[in-house]
Amino acid sequence: MPKKPAVRQSKPAFLFDLDGTLIDSVYEHVLAWREALREFGIDLSTWRIHRRVGMSGGLILNALQRETGRKLSDKEAERLRRLHGEAFLRRLGDLRPLPGARDLLSMLTRVSVPWAIATSGKEEHARQAIKILDLGERIPLITRSDVVHGKPFPDLFLAAAARLKMNINNCIVVGDSIWDLVASRRAHALGVGLLSGGYGEEELAHAGAYRVYADPAELLRHIDELGVEADV
Amino acid sequence: MPKKPAVRQSKPAFLFDLDGTLIDSVYEHVLAWREALREFGIDLSTWRIHRRVGMSGGLILNALQRETGRKLSDKEAERLRRLHGEAFLRRLGDLRPLPGARDLLSMLTRVSVPWAIATSGKEEHARQAIKILDLGERIPLITRSDVVHGKPFPDLFLAAAARLKMNINNCIVVGDSIWDLVASRRAHALGVGLLSGGYGEEELAHAGAYRVYADPAELLRHIDELGVEADV
Repeated sequence: MPKKPAVRQSKPAFLFDLDGTLIDSVYEHVLAWREALREFGIDLSTWRIHRRVGMSGGLILNALQRETGRKLSDKEAERLRRLHGEAFLRRLGDLRPLPGARDLLSMLTRVSVPWAIATSGKEEHARQAIKILDLGERIPLITRSDVVHGKPFPDLFLAAAARLKMNINNCIVVGDSIWDLVASRRAHALGVGLLSGGYGEEELAHAGAYRVYADPAELLRHIDELGVEADV
Repeated sequence: MPKKPAVRQSKPAFLFDLDGTLIDSVYEHVLAWREALREFGIDLSTWRIHRRVGMSGGLILNALQRETGRKLSDKEAERLRRLHGEAFLRRLGDLRPLPGARDLLSMLTRVSVPWAIATSGKEEHARQAIKILDLGERIPLITRSDVVHGKPFPDLFLAAAARLKMNINNCIVVGDSIWDLVASRRAHALGVGLLSGGYGEEELAHAGAYRVYADPAELLRHIDELGVEADV
């Protein structure tokens, strides 16, 4: 029998975005930002807000200022962020896990593939939202509070890889927004897009997605395409 | 001076979708459907509902049944539609005109380009929503009640062209959803896509959009590309 070549296949690790990737919460964030912006008399179209969710709050504010031409003071920006947070927490009861999210994470744990969650959101919001995944308290979670820059900077994914003690080149970033994918390219990870945040397939492909699936359930059914051997 | 050739350029007419095209109301419809579905114990992901809004209510129900595997009786379907309607009307106060919508329609009227609104929605909802455009009562409006089949059937746009006494081939359909564009192709009108309903640009192009603009304001700035000579 011929000897197999001695190239060792590296098992990947997975770095997941949270909102729109594991939890059906993008539309809640969109409406929470809209509510907060309207309190400031800023009427920005809902779809434009949708396309900004997933960025760090600071960068969302920059982008919104560019689109509306209105410059907020630091104090106003802080108030806007607080209003968004309050409006989001009021909508917590409407959140659901995305189909397959729990099964996917449980399967990865079962076959010893490391994974973490890296979100541009605040730790307080993420901890609340993550509860509906019902996976216990010990989820490796990196939030905006852990890094200097949120997405589309690569910092959150780099910090998540470091937390798992994995080389970022062996990591697969899974996200629903173009900001996840742009950040994954800057981090030199492989990016996988999900449609479950409401972006179109080509928007994600153009932002650099290596593969695009509908949601965690479809990703799970195709997990072998991402280098994980598991009987799913 | 050479004589100009005797080809007469036909002025187009415009057939507008309503939700997501003239009014920022797609996200309200999405959440209203989600609320109604949850009352039935149907947990369908928000983005999947988003991609169905703009179809006729009956076809939405077919699509949802295909995605959830649950078959509703006629009585249940009727109740679901009623719940959606109630949930939508509760959100009327959140609706805004999309940027440029009023200016675009006023300009077309000023330069004597005929236009009408053709929506898959119920007449009652459309009449309520249309009020925020503040264009008076005499808007030519075709709704689901006027035709046998809603979008993506071509009936609504064919009926709107007939109302304007225009040949459908001279009509430009403007819509935010792939159902508008698919219907416009079936009607043999020219379809123009708007991003203001939250679809991606390529989704609209793939569905057959001849041009894609961000919103009514951007369409208005490019109105010469669509064959309307106006000083805007």
